[in-house]
Amino acid sequence: MRRQRYSLSCRTAILGTVTLAAVVGTADGVAAQSLKDLQIPDTPLVLKAQGSFFIGGEKSEQTQGELGDLGPGGRITVNQMYVRYMVPQGGDGNVPVVMVHGATLTGKSWETTPDGRMGWDEYFVRKGHPVYVPDQVGRGRSGFNQAVFNDVRAGSVPPATLPRFLRFSDEVVWPNFRFGSKPGAPYQDTQFPVAAVDELSKQGVPDVSFGGVPNPNPTLKALSDLASQVNGAVLMGHSQSGPFPLAAALLNPAVAKGLVLVEPGGCPANYTDDQIKTLATLPILVVFGDHRDTPTGIGSRPSWQLSFESCQSLVERLKGAGGQAQMLSPSESGIRGNSHMIMQDKNALQIADLILRWIDERVSKPKAVK
Amino acid sequence: MRRQRYSLSCRTAILGTVTLAAVVGTADGVAAQSLKDLQIPDTPLVLKAQGSFFIGGEKSEQTQGELGDLGPGGRITVNQMYVRYMVPQGGDGNVPVVMVHGATLTGKSWETTPDGRMGWDEYFVRKGHPVYVPDQVGRGRSGFNQAVFNDVRAGSVPPATLPRFLRFSDEVVWPNFRFGSKPGAPYQDTQFPVAAVDELSKQGVPDVSFGGVPNPNPTLKALSDLASQVNGAVLMGHSQSGPFPLAAALLNPAVAKGLVLVEPGGCPANYTDDQIKTLATLPILVVFGDHRDTPTGIGSRPSWQLSFESCQSLVERLKGAGGQAQMLSPSESGIRGNSHMIMQDKNALQIADLILRWIDERVSKPKAVK
Repeated sequence: MRRQRYSLSCRTAILGTVTLAAVVGTADGVAAQSLKDLQIPDTPLVLKAQGSFFIGGEKSEQTQGELGDLGPGGRITVNQMYVRYMVPQGGDGNVPVVMVHGATLTGKSWETTPDGRMGWDEYFVRKGHPVYVPDQVGRGRSGFNQAVFNDVRAGSVPPATLPRFLRFSDEVVWPNFRFGSKPGAPYQDTQFPVAAVDELSKQGVPDVSFGGVPNPNPTLKALSDLASQVNGAVLMGHSQSGPFPLAAALLNPAVAKGLVLVEPGGCPANYTDDQIKTLATLPILVVFGDHRDTPTGIGSRPSWQLSFESCQSLVERLKGAGGQAQMLSPSESGIRGNSHMIMQDKNALQIADLILRWIDERVSKPKAVK
Repeated sequence: MRRQRYSLSCRTAILGTVTLAAVVGTADGVAAQSLKDLQIPDTPLVLKAQGSFFIGGEKSEQTQGELGDLGPGGRITVNQMYVRYMVPQGGDGNVPVVMVHGATLTGKSWETTPDGRMGWDEYFVRKGHPVYVPDQVGRGRSGFNQAVFNDVRAGSVPPATLPRFLRFSDEVVWPNFRFGSKPGAPYQDTQFPVAAVDELSKQGVPDVSFGGVPNPNPTLKALSDLASQVNGAVLMGHSQSGPFPLAAALLNPAVAKGLVLVEPGGCPANYTDDQIKTLATLPILVVFGDHRDTPTGIGSRPSWQLSFESCQSLVERLKGAGGQAQMLSPSESGIRGNSHMIMQDKNALQIADLILRWIDERVSKPKAVK
């Protein structure tokens, strides 16, 4: 497959006359837009199958008020996980890749980038892998359990009962996602398409997973069950979900064919020796971008370097137990300026290629698809 | 294109060994499952492009508490509309179809059916149309404005300030979506795959659009803008969003190439003569299933026959103004048992074919794709 390129004739044919929204002035003078910026690949995407389904979920008996007061009380399903998938034609025997998003985000993270380039979801499919993209339990198309919000509204439980809904402000995103020290001041070498940062802002949804989902987080079991249902998968997490592949693998190591931790918020330091022994049997890759030693803008999290070092420690411990875990830090081999949203960076496909090569070498090489 | 069929060899190859979740006993003895029930089409899906983007959205300045208390206050984007799209290879000149979901649901409504068959999204693509599937502002991947929930949590505004989150219980879904008079008692001729009703239950998400989104609903302008950006589209709504195509068309009639109202909650009776004159210039189709005269289980909405009749009145008024609006009620031509979730019914592709033929005849016939 050729890399996608900007193809004016295709875009015009598909999108016709576009309506320009207000043009946003940005650091490098490029307007951040949405539909008009979608880039069309040079070759078609040929899918054996695509669609969506759910993993898990349980029944919850709720009152009329808890259901929003339209009809009588009854049972609903909560804690299910939505999954969208694409299987390339000819690639159904290749190892699937599951891509899980981070805090305040949804599976959209892995789809078309904010500036309209191909997402990792499609790229990995074009490279031969079936790809499964969930929304974490507690947001997006997986939904959440709304009962407590309606209970507080009705006055039957106190307001302090509510879990918080988390969003990151644009002001926090710039330093925390390491685009630059503050809004509008990108690092000179940043790989994030900062002209489209307002499109990233639209990807944010209220995140109730810090207190508003059961403990342990149902997403972990759902990921393990998903890997099982597809007969083994590479589990890839990002940021908040960066360590999720480790937890899911411990639930059923046999179906965790490889773990890719992309910019994880941190790696656990408290695994038992037995857990380390289990994880040491699995191929594990930890990927971090650049500018890790800059302030995040969040007091409780001084820098991403601390996350990096916690993963380094885990990797060392796994190696000590005979494991094949490894760190991948492209900046150390001269690929500079990658951000926390590395799957959306301008060189995202270059980073994807590094991960794909690792999968080829450490998990299994996919049969080529056209 | 051939109709999809259950292909064991394909499924086994793709899905490998499946892990059976608890088997749910159902009316006809078939187990409702998820991944293992996915049906693979006989022919690949060839896409010129696929991906996702956003329409609209505006900045909202929020406090630290309103953002969930992790970082300092700042600006976020709210009221944006997420859209996923697929463009068939060779079909980029054909009229696009926008499919909008109903209350307590997301764009998932139009994807793989609860029992694993092809959704209308893919079917319309295979029939040559670019397809755009949004999540309404206020849920799913479009998110909502969480500020008031965190304000109530902090005690700075009273609990009664909260908008309600709506969900439909399984007990309400059976009569209201017209699968049967009560759970487990399907109509003898029901077309809904009732063995998979628990999979439909998983499609429910908390719906804040009854009080928790701005008025007018930003989804209406976003639909109009989407139709404009793709240079004209057929707008299709369902249930709550059934009348949305009418409202979106009135914002910019030139880009509303056709309106399809699928099982709308009702049709407005208060249009001005000028509005009727505008709508009379557009091809409009209103689609309703069977068993409309049965109780819904919701006190304030006695039956769907009332919705049907409100649309009949509008259609008559439009015809009186020279319009070409029409009702489509398959039960009157012998296709019995269709439910409110007609796009998921067992004969969903038969119903789709009726709509596609109407598009061919009244809007424009798509160039065939392979």
